[in-house]
This record gives sequence, structure tokens and C-alpha cells, in this order.
Amino acid sequence: MSGAIQPDLDLAASLFEALGRATRRGGGIVRESYGAGEQAAHDLVRSAASAMGLEISVDAIGNLFMTLAGADRTAPRIVVGSHLDSVPQGGNYDGAAGVVAGLCVLSAMRRARVVPNCDLSVMAIRAEESAWFDIAYLGSGGAFGLLDPACLSIARSDNGESLEATLQQQGFDSQPIRERRRLLDPSRIRAYLELHIEQGPTLVARGLPAAVVSGIRGCKRFRNSRCTGQYAHSGAVARPYRRDAVAATVAFLHHMETLWLRHEAAGEDLVVTAGELYTNPTMHGPSKIAGETHFVLDIRALSAATMEAVAAEARASAAQISAAYRVVIDLGATSDSPPAVLDSRLRSRLMSLLEHPFEMPSGAGHDAAVFAKVGIPSAMIFVRNENGSHNPQEAMSLADFGVAARALLELAMNFPL
Amino acid sequence: MSGAIQPDLDLAASLFEALGRATRRGGGIVRESYGAGEQAAHDLVRSAASAMGLEISVDAIGNLFMTLAGADRTAPRIVVGSHLDSVPQGGNYDGAAGVVAGLCVLSAMRRARVVPNCDLSVMAIRAEESAWFDIAYLGSGGAFGLLDPACLSIARSDNGESLEATLQQQGFDSQPIRERRRLLDPSRIRAYLELHIEQGPTLVARGLPAAVVSGIRGCKRFRNSRCTGQYAHSGAVARPYRRDAVAATVAFLHHMETLWLRHEAAGEDLVVTAGELYTNPTMHGPSKIAGETHFVLDIRALSAATMEAVAAEARASAAQISAAYRVVIDLGATSDSPPAVLDSRLRSRLMSLLEHPFEMPSGAGHDAAVFAKVGIPSAMIFVRNENGSHNPQEAMSLADFGVAARALLELAMNFPL
Repeated sequence: MSGAIQPDLDLAASLFEALGRATRRGGGIVRESYGAGEQAAHDLVRSAASAMGLEISVDAIGNLFMTLAGADRTAPRIVVGSHLDSVPQGGNYDGAAGVVAGLCVLSAMRRARVVPNCDLSVMAIRAEESAWFDIAYLGSGGAFGLLDPACLSIARSDNGESLEATLQQQGFDSQPIRERRRLLDPSRIRAYLELHIEQGPTLVARGLPAAVVSGIRGCKRFRNSRCTGQYAHSGAVARPYRRDAVAATVAFLHHMETLWLRHEAAGEDLVVTAGELYTNPTMHGPSKIAGETHFVLDIRALSAATMEAVAAEARASAAQISAAYRVVIDLGATSDSPPAVLDSRLRSRLMSLLEHPFEMPSGAGHDAAVFAKVGIPSAMIFVRNENGSHNPQEAMSLADFGVAARALLELAMNFPL
Repeated sequence: MSGAIQPDLDLAASLFEALGRATRRGGGIVRESYGAGEQAAHDLVRSAASAMGLEISVDAIGNLFMTLAGADRTAPRIVVGSHLDSVPQGGNYDGAAGVVAGLCVLSAMRRARVVPNCDLSVMAIRAEESAWFDIAYLGSGGAFGLLDPACLSIARSDNGESLEATLQQQGFDSQPIRERRRLLDPSRIRAYLELHIEQGPTLVARGLPAAVVSGIRGCKRFRNSRCTGQYAHSGAVARPYRRDAVAATVAFLHHMETLWLRHEAAGEDLVVTAGELYTNPTMHGPSKIAGETHFVLDIRALSAATMEAVAAEARASAAQISAAYRVVIDLGATSDSPPAVLDSRLRSRLMSLLEHPFEMPSGAGHDAAVFAKVGIPSAMIFVRNENGSHNPQEAMSLADFGVAARALLELAMNFPL
């Protein structure tokens, strides 16, 4: 690492402080997608970017670009970005850290009078969480013309306003979404880089400040699985005659854990979770055999082939266990999001810039997945963070943030690789 | 079997028909404990008993005795009984069949001018289900002075009236319950016999009309078990860092099934059921690792030692799995009811009276458990019944009922054994 130029951590500290102050409501951060909180965050970073002399532009659906001009302005640019919205009662860093990191990098280059080879844009992306509209990646998906126009009629969860009406009230234009028209040309972007807090405990547990993200896990989710057996008296029905929905569901989910361990032993990346599981509260009882369960089975992996294999094994196991327990386990349809492949050259370069190189998958989705999907070489770097994300207790140290931002700065300054 | 005297199945048919007609509301039978439905059933059987010349008496808490005088009126009597209340929207046979069987037996003896050695009483017991007061065995427990006087303040679930007020409104006396005073002297009862429909599918599956009951399973129930882990993002937390309450609960309940199979293989009677199981609906989510589950674990066996052993194994397993999954499985306290031992001589005699002798445990509780508890030699006979009990679809054939009633008649006529 050349240590000459350092990311502007004073700027980072003041921006995090200002963002927290402007968008805290009660105990947590509220930057509602396409609402006042998200707009307040956009206003703050925009004025910081203006103050440092960056070029400012906003696209038709509200994504904000803050650009340091490169030597060759006709060359494809590098985008450093993340989102500025939060979940309800979220934390100060999920999303915002990536935008602030981009500004720290550009501020450092600007102060050092470094002129990059190509334009470097920090992109503050709209509505990635989109907790108020129940459709993720509105900003990045909309920028690449990937949204289903039907999403414009989705009602905002708190006030019932449609996405279309909300966009118009904020002074934006729903027409590109309606026409699936793209606002960004993938061929004009040579790389997308995103810094994000880790949303799990791995870096804390390993004592590392940052990690390169190996890929973004896809998700194959059986959202509406149910097991149907027969309600009966818990004392009066012997084992051979039971159709116990809980016993069958337990056997099924236990088998899923066995499958997980088997795939893990074979070196595959995989997580398997049943986060919702319940007997029917209007029918169950302490002295009844349960006649039904509902559950969600969430399968995530870096490899689509692994997810397909596990889903197929789940279906086969559901059929076998249904027969053995005289019940019907109906896993139902899956909702799928494919894994995102991050660029191997960018990943290697980022690894070489870390003092303690460590690579790990991202289990949650990120805007980087959208950039990767349209063919833009993309990379992510995670920053150590306590207490998970999507809650007010997110805790990232400025020192750890600096380690990751420094790697981004080095990468950006030395393009092409 | 001496076939000379047969139970009066015409009387049975007309009583079942009249009981169904008098107490059907909507699709099901409603004979609410200490309410109009139960009283209508008492009135019907009482008038049938009067018509056949039996002695009638009612105790202070409403239990009805219909007695055929024996040769020696000072000898301890035989009681044939069951309850006349039902669950809400129950069936026509659960409870009533045992009272009707007693009357069929006495009617047959009366017609044949058989004078038994001792008095034979049919006892129509109050409030065994007691679905409206949430305390079982009110009638039989009260008759033996076994009730906690605190039960008098329990509110009826539909109208909020206390048990005490309800008893008084029906013309009964709460004082014996308040004083724990017994109304029946166990030493004056030489045997208690109860016919009841089977509440499970065993006899249907085996093609048998009736079975002798080997014992009444006790119940050891962990009513408020919970597993506490930590909510987290289902994609973002790797297996070693998870504190997944569902995964741990699944592992625990799966181990309980393994234990069940092991005890069963060792020849022990046992059933293990988790009839309620749920993640917290206000906190769970399809992409979350669940941070808590609640469940009920219901352990039933004919042997108290088996129940104790399984409960101890459950606690040990909960501790091991808590450590392995980094969660806390707190099984909480148990509510216990001991198994009831039925009289071996009466059981053998009943077995000898069946064409296809078959013995099976009762998983549900019955008044016979109360009689056995106070030291009265007690026995039960089950009648084949489709569709379980506690629902309007209870289905017992008169022919099967006749097989069991005939065994009771033979037993009663040939006392002492």
C-alpha cells in the first residue's frame, strides 16, 4: 500500500454525525425510501459534494451522482456507491457508509490534486431497502430499466400513496420505469465499488476490520410451506395412527440441517433457515396432536447450482417424510433471487490492499448485485460492525471504516488494474 | 359367555336418540357442565331409570344415582358410571355411552328378575369434561372430597358466573366442596366400571369392537417451554455464529422422538407430543433467523417411572442442545397428572368375556381415574368409535356398544369374581 494519500476521515466523521442528527427519530434512524428522511440524507451529502467542487447530477428517479472529472472524460467511469435509505428504526451505517466512503475517497484525491484517468462518480442510490414499498433495489433497478412497471402502483405502507404518486410528489419522473427505459448505460461504467457494513458477526468474531466480499448469496425461498396432518387427542392416538404435523415438520427441518452440513462438508457455501414456523393458533392445543404447521424455508448460497440441488433435495425429503408420517408436506412455490458474481480481478486487487486479507460471502442483497447483473465488473468491501444491521445498535468504528475506505481509494487511484 | 340375558339395546337406542335430539345445537352436541344441556341429559336418564323402577338419588353437587337393590343391601355396592356433560360442539357418545350402558345392564337384570348380590348403581357423573370451568373431574372429584375449594371461584367461560354461583343456581350445594367433605365413602364401593368410546383409531384399525383398558396414562406436560436465541439476518450470519431458536427447537424435538422410539423398543407405554409450536409472530420474518420459539411438550405413559425418566431425559437434552446451538431452552415447570392403575382382576375378568380379547391404554383421562385414585377397584371397557371424540362426528355402532355392554352385564351379574 502506498500510504501517501489517506481517505478524508474528518469528512466521514462529520457526515455520519450530521446524517444521524438529521434522520434520527426516537431511538432509531428513519430514512424512508422516497420520503423526507431519505431526502434529508441526499441533501446533506449533496451539499458536502458541492462544497468540495464535485459535479452534481440527479437522474429522473432521484439517484444522485457526485463526480470528480477524470483526464479522459469520454472513458467509461468508475462508480462508488450505496443507498441512503434505511429500514424503519434502522442504524446510521447500513447504506450511508458506502456513500460517505465514496466522498472520503474523492475528497482525498481532490485535496491531493490527483486527476483520475476516468471520471469517478459517487452514486447515492435511492430506495435499496425500500421497506416502505416492499420491492427492493428501486433506485439501482430503475436506473438500469429492470423494474416491472407494475411496481408503480405499489402503495406506501404507511400512507397508502402509490410509488408513482410518491415519485411525482418528490419531483421525479415515473415515465422511465413505465417504459423500462434505462438511465445508465452499463457499457459506460467500467467498475462499481460498494463499501457496506457487515450485517453479521463474522468480522467481530475473527477480529478483522474489513473483508472483501466473495459474492452475494442468491436466495431460494419456500415462502408458504405447510404440513397438513390430522388433529387428534395427544393421549389417545398411538404412534402408528398419528398424522402429527409438528413431528413431520421437525423431521423435515432436521433433515434439512443434515443436508446443510453435508453440503458444507463438501466445501459449498450455504445457509438454510426456517425463520417462521407455527401451528395454527385457532386450532392447536396443549393436549392435541397438531393437524397443521406453516413454515418458511430460506435457502441461500453463492452458487445457483447449490441452491437448486438443495431445493430438489428438500422436495424429495418432503415427499419421503410425508409418506413416513402420513401427512402432506407441501413446500409450495419458491421466490428466487439469483446469486451475484463479483469480479475476480477487483476482488484480488482489494485482497492485496488489505493488511489481513479475508474474503467472505454476503448473505444479504446489495445494489452491487444489480450492477453485477447488468454485466458491470463489481466489487464490495465489508466493514466490521457490532450488533448486526437494520437496528439502531449498528456500531462501526471510524478506524475500521478507514481501513476499507483506504482500500477503495487505492483501487480507484490505480485504475485500470 | 352365558348368553341368556342380553343388555337392553332397545333402551340404548332410544336413549341415544333422545339425548341427541335434546342436546344438539347446530351441528354438534352441547351438554355444558352444570348447564342446561347437561341437565337435560340428566333429566332424560333419570326418567328412564324411574320408569324401570330403579331407586333414584342425587348428591349435593348433582351426581345422579340410579340403583337396583341387591340381596344384601348392607354390602358395598358396584357403581357403573360415566359423565353426561360434553365439550362444546362435541359428540353424542363421549360420556353418555357409559351411563346408557349401565341402564341397559340394569334394565336387562330387572326384566330377567335377577337380584344381584349387592346394590348396583348407575352413576351419571357431573362435569367430567368441564370445558366451561377449566377443571376436570368436578363431579367425581367433588364426590370424593378431592377438589381444591379455590375451584369454586373459577368463572364459567361463557357467562363469567363462578362455579359456586352456578351450583347454587342449579339448586346444588357448594358447601361440601368448600369443606373438602366426601359424599361417597370409598369403602362402601366394591368396584367401579366404566364403558367409554375409544377416542383414537386403534380399534377401527384393528377391526375389533371393544377393548379392555389396561390403565389410564398419566400426563407430564411442559406447558410453557421456550427457546431463546437471537434474531438475525438469515443470509448474513454463518452457522458457527447463529443462535437459531427454530434450529435448536427442531433438534430438541427430534431428539424427543428418538427417545420415544427407544422407550417403545424397550416395551414401555409412551406417547410424546408437541401440539403447539410457534415463533413469535410480532418478531419473526421470512428472512430472519428466529430468536425465540414457544412450545408445549406433552408426555404420557402408563408408568409414572417412564414419565419421570423421559422428563429427566428431556431436561438433559435441552441443556445439551442449548449449549450446542448457543440458545437457552427453558422447558419450565410441568403440570402433572399421575397414571391410574386399573384393577388387574377386573381387567382379566373383562378380557375373558370378550370374544377377541384385546387390551390397550387410555390416553385421555376418565372418571375411572378418580375412583382408582381413592382405592376403589376400577375397570374400563372401550368401544370402537370412528373419527375420534370431542367432535360431532363421533360414530359408535349399537352392535359394538352391545359387545361391551354384554361384558359389563356378565361381570356385574357374577360378582364377587
